[in-house]
Amino acid sequence: MQIAVMGFGTVGSGVAELVTNNSALLARRCGVDSIEVKRILDIRDFPGSPFEDKLTKNFEDIVSDPEISVVAETMGGLRPAFEFTAACLKAGKHVVTSNKELVAAKGDELLKLARENSVSYLFEASVGGGIPLLRPISRCLAGNEFLEITGILNGTTNFILTKMITENMPFGEALSIAQKNGYAERDPSADIDGADACRKTAILASLACGKHVDPDLIHTEGIRDLNLEDVRYAHAAKFAVKLLGTCRKKRDGSFYTIVRPALVPFTSLLSRVDGVFNAVMVRGDAVGVTMFYGRGAGKMPTASAVVGDIADCVCLGRNTKTGYGWGDRDGSVVSDYLSEPVSLYVRGLATDRAAAYDELLEVFGSNRYIYVGDAPINEIAFITQRDSERTLRQKLGTLRNFSVKSVIRVEDDI
Amino acid sequence: MQIAVMGFGTVGSGVAELVTNNSALLARRCGVDSIEVKRILDIRDFPGSPFEDKLTKNFEDIVSDPEISVVAETMGGLRPAFEFTAACLKAGKHVVTSNKELVAAKGDELLKLARENSVSYLFEASVGGGIPLLRPISRCLAGNEFLEITGILNGTTNFILTKMITENMPFGEALSIAQKNGYAERDPSADIDGADACRKTAILASLACGKHVDPDLIHTEGIRDLNLEDVRYAHAAKFAVKLLGTCRKKRDGSFYTIVRPALVPFTSLLSRVDGVFNAVMVRGDAVGVTMFYGRGAGKMPTASAVVGDIADCVCLGRNTKTGYGWGDRDGSVVSDYLSEPVSLYVRGLATDRAAAYDELLEVFGSNRYIYVGDAPINEIAFITQRDSERTLRQKLGTLRNFSVKSVIRVEDDI
Repeated sequence: MQIAVMGFGTVGSGVAELVTNNSALLARRCGVDSIEVKRILDIRDFPGSPFEDKLTKNFEDIVSDPEISVVAETMGGLRPAFEFTAACLKAGKHVVTSNKELVAAKGDELLKLARENSVSYLFEASVGGGIPLLRPISRCLAGNEFLEITGILNGTTNFILTKMITENMPFGEALSIAQKNGYAERDPSADIDGADACRKTAILASLACGKHVDPDLIHTEGIRDLNLEDVRYAHAAKFAVKLLGTCRKKRDGSFYTIVRPALVPFTSLLSRVDGVFNAVMVRGDAVGVTMFYGRGAGKMPTASAVVGDIADCVCLGRNTKTGYGWGDRDGSVVSDYLSEPVSLYVRGLATDRAAAYDELLEVFGSNRYIYVGDAPINEIAFITQRDSERTLRQKLGTLRNFSVKSVIRVEDDI
Repeated sequence: MQIAVMGFGTVGSGVAELVTNNSALLARRCGVDSIEVKRILDIRDFPGSPFEDKLTKNFEDIVSDPEISVVAETMGGLRPAFEFTAACLKAGKHVVTSNKELVAAKGDELLKLARENSVSYLFEASVGGGIPLLRPISRCLAGNEFLEITGILNGTTNFILTKMITENMPFGEALSIAQKNGYAERDPSADIDGADACRKTAILASLACGKHVDPDLIHTEGIRDLNLEDVRYAHAAKFAVKLLGTCRKKRDGSFYTIVRPALVPFTSLLSRVDGVFNAVMVRGDAVGVTMFYGRGAGKMPTASAVVGDIADCVCLGRNTKTGYGWGDRDGSVVSDYLSEPVSLYVRGLATDRAAAYDELLEVFGSNRYIYVGDAPINEIAFITQRDSERTLRQKLGTLRNFSVKSVIRVEDDI
């Protein structure tokens, strides 16, 4: 059994190494004589690489080779990954990928193309790195209606947040340690502003609702503006601040789908997920709550997920119905997030403390106030009762004795 | 697409209800027009059941019906489940099951029979109830060499332990609450003496090592003799007592495979798994640590796993290679547990406190002593340094000034 790898970067080289090193094991589990990397596509040269003789710059060497039945696309980006993937599927080759950007943007088209050509398009590695996630959701839990999928989907931001929480380290300092350790890019914006988590949330939401959810429809906020003060108040109220991607079914059949920081109670296992680890909580109508935990990024964990997909393609062959139950695009599945009933954590400064408390009582009724030892005398922090986010924000806008500094959603029930 | 259910007990009725209630959803995900329960086998009568017209007492109505392509075996026990399963596989029907006793005892034979007849024998529900576990391990992680699988595999004992830990409740009282809540049988021995966890550990070990691991080879201890005193000492040293099933690869290629209570450090997510929940930690050479969490028992969670397997059979059809990579029986894969290097928690009574400390220092070198406020004056509790369990137990046997009351393994590294 011969496979090809497109893109010899971190993940692609991990895939080539893992297939080669665990080749006998993999072949035994898949019930074939051998599994071997025949070709690796990259525009760069890699002199001295043990895979040098397999490298090619010519896509034709892969797409036109009838011996290659599975192609791992680990190039990233939309182009030419989209064109290459489409061409491989049309040529009757299974394609597996770690490319979350492409899956989130074009999953519906590529899955349709795969169905039309009786091959698989699998992308376990696109969400949660090495954590088995998409196949468990779409296959093991196929009998469930999905009520909620919520997760810590970005290891870089979780590393930064863990430093802020456990070491009281400001955001900027934690970011530069993440960069030094290779957990954050030199331009970290895709991670810290939430775009990466948004793509992954779009993929999970597409599985949950059976429609292609466009990432552009998902309200997304990152952690760039998060203050140590808020982390401390949260801690005092027994919450950890986590960047969560959430997709939750509403009574009207639409899905509350959002990416932004949230206060997660210490009683939730998600609050205990630290460092570069990811975790995803899935709630189904039959199974109840399940959680999946592991390394959400990194060369070998991500390669592990890609190779799992390769094994699936090898085991299953052609003409099986292994789609993710992922239908056409439908913008109406994403609800207006401002209409969702939420609790909000709010921190701000009172112009006059007594007057501010009076006004807050008048406007919000009872709030849950949070106290920390060394706070500025005019600072007030509280958690509101549950109401629609639009109403809560309108109320915050009316306050005259209190200027709002931070607002973070509270996820009490996870 | 027509299916049958054998055994209309708790799990079987859950499967029938779930397939019926989520029928449209399931059919869409599997790419077929409909999925329907055609027959249910049970020797009992169920007058008034909505499935009354489908019930039969005659196995021939299932095995000889060419319209039935998937059979869910939810009878439990070895006989006649084994004969019925074998007959269905030989008749070219896929079989899915929640029957851990049968899988642990006869998995190798039934998987071989399934291969010979080009059908699937799947048993996701046999370990971890609703938690997606066996398919993630055997498929998503197929590229990994498994270094360790350790888990909380029995919800009844974890419920009892959680009551003991969080409410300081003695074992007997916690057990009777578990029985009142329906979490424990009237005869609770299969749960509390570890036999249930042992079967599940045997199944996980078989996946990890690729050989059929006989449950009789696994050293198993339950929680019947666990004292509240030990729970308290463990807590003081920042450990929770959990009943763990463990399968860990050794350098010589064999597997340390054992079921018994263990001290799990608070830093491990496993220590946070409370009540009837289960969780399994899987460590692979590429993926690193992953964890799977959810409801390990109960009607609908278990039905969810069975229905996921049904969906797999429907999607994949015949002639795919979906075995779990589970080979023949091989007794040599289970190592002698007494030769394994471990740390032990020990509690006992000193005849003379000073003499006991002197002797412990002489025999063990430095131990980590644990103190709790209200302990009897002559009680001493400590955690040993790491050594082979045989050596440690021999040393404990030599002590003259200290009589051992409890010994529990310590799992520091999970």
